[in-house]
Amino acid sequence: MSGTVSLVGAGPGDPKLITVRGAEVLALADVVVYDRLASPALLELAPVMAERVYVGKEPGRAAMVQEAISALLVERALAGEAVVRLKGGDPFVFGRGGEEALACARAGVAFEVVPGVSSAIAAPAAIGIPVTHRGLARSLAIVTASTAHGDGTDLRTVATATDTLVLLMAAGHLERTCAELVASGRSPDEPAALVQWAWTPEQRSVAGTLSTLPALALAASIGPPATLVVGAVAALGDQLVSRVGTSSSEAIVSPSQSSGSGLSISAETSGSRISTGRIPTAAAPESSR
Amino acid sequence: MSGTVSLVGAGPGDPKLITVRGAEVLALADVVVYDRLASPALLELAPVMAERVYVGKEPGRAAMVQEAISALLVERALAGEAVVRLKGGDPFVFGRGGEEALACARAGVAFEVVPGVSSAIAAPAAIGIPVTHRGLARSLAIVTASTAHGDGTDLRTVATATDTLVLLMAAGHLERTCAELVASGRSPDEPAALVQWAWTPEQRSVAGTLSTLPALALAASIGPPATLVVGAVAALGDQLVSRVGTSSSEAIVSPSQSSGSGLSISAETSGSRISTGRIPTAAAPESSR
Repeated sequence: MSGTVSLVGAGPGDPKLITVRGAEVLALADVVVYDRLASPALLELAPVMAERVYVGKEPGRAAMVQEAISALLVERALAGEAVVRLKGGDPFVFGRGGEEALACARAGVAFEVVPGVSSAIAAPAAIGIPVTHRGLARSLAIVTASTAHGDGTDLRTVATATDTLVLLMAAGHLERTCAELVASGRSPDEPAALVQWAWTPEQRSVAGTLSTLPALALAASIGPPATLVVGAVAALGDQLVSRVGTSSSEAIVSPSQSSGSGLSISAETSGSRISTGRIPTAAAPESSR
Repeated sequence: MSGTVSLVGAGPGDPKLITVRGAEVLALADVVVYDRLASPALLELAPVMAERVYVGKEPGRAAMVQEAISALLVERALAGEAVVRLKGGDPFVFGRGGEEALACARAGVAFEVVPGVSSAIAAPAAIGIPVTHRGLARSLAIVTASTAHGDGTDLRTVATATDTLVLLMAAGHLERTCAELVASGRSPDEPAALVQWAWTPEQRSVAGTLSTLPALALAASIGPPATLVVGAVAALGDQLVSRVGTSSSEAIVSPSQSSGSGLSISAETSGSRISTGRIPTAAAPESSR
């Protein structure tokens, strides 16, 4: 009997931001095919005996080409295995999940797509930025730096089309990207923020404007993987970072404490966990804001 | 001691597409404040004694105004309760979660944002449409019908800016929306699809082009809530609908069988569940496609 391929969105970084269905299919996997952006804690959800196959990029080594990944998924499923393809964010948002699903369909392999929380929306949220906000942003565009610089498309067509613009994989070309956005009609004073490793213990971010952001990112040594968000909503970040604890005597738990020890699917009894990477400097009541 | 507010994305419809973290905070709630788009099965994740407060629209009755909802969240948290605000999709994608977070911040109430799977991405996926796909779509815009028709913004600025365009809450103005997209430069032959109640047992969809879709939707009586997706990727739907089972003797499980009986957080032992609302008419191998 033929196996199945589940294309599972791992979410933006925090292992608890996978879906319940994603966790379910992981728990039944014979083999998990994953890349760099999937949290290591998620791999622990698969059975101990399940095979883990890493197909992402490593420094100095090329990643497995997409065709080889698709072929691997099909081959293992045809051999009768329950294959989970674990992908950062959502499989259908610049995750090439469509190609893998198509390979399965063409080979007659049963497959399931399990959507995930997209980093395009959740990475801004990790630093308190809602991609839409009444009065500030009623439209959103999502592109990648490679969209902008790699394949003949440029940012001019999307620069001013929507109130909020999210650029994935933005760290590598930040100065050029910001300059192109300004050249395309965005104000140099437009709020902008960059967040690296969102929803992980390594999360770091800078916020400023299109004109100030590149220098801020350089000074903070923020590199890939990073998400750029541009628009009026980017100025909301300071106010809207999640915070738990309203008096200074209450603990604020950072992801480094909460995410490092694996993931329990059952509900926890503690209500003090917070899934944001930014710890408020003051946990006192904020009524003056 | 003050309570907390958790702004939780319920995901696109299937209760198993909530995040693990979302399920966790629900299990600890004193009160759950929810609207129409959250699955009833998710309410069962809250403790039996937890209060459920419905604040969505009902036919013939106005919804609770946003300010009243925000005030309710703050009031309950200040009274010491663990408040979960459960919102369809993601709280920060046209969910007005930013306003609720801001109300909490201003009142000094501790809050947490738990991102969800956005319907803007997952509703197309439910009918086999990846919002990005190599060679077909490298950019994505998300707007709402009210963005387009309600507040002085029109579709001209976004109509052709991105390869894929997703319109939420699109059923009410479908004919006008499609006509405006064509008037703004999209081809009348551009593939387009409309999906209602994505990822629920009631899921229904039609697919065609910008010129044919309104009549198809009318004939199928597809109303709100529905998501419109426009662009070359919309033609991929037939090939990429999730399918489990490669021989006709295997069961294909529809959401009406899988989602109706509540949600278990623990992993199931059956691998045959499929989270799509469209049952393939033929489950035979598809190698001829």
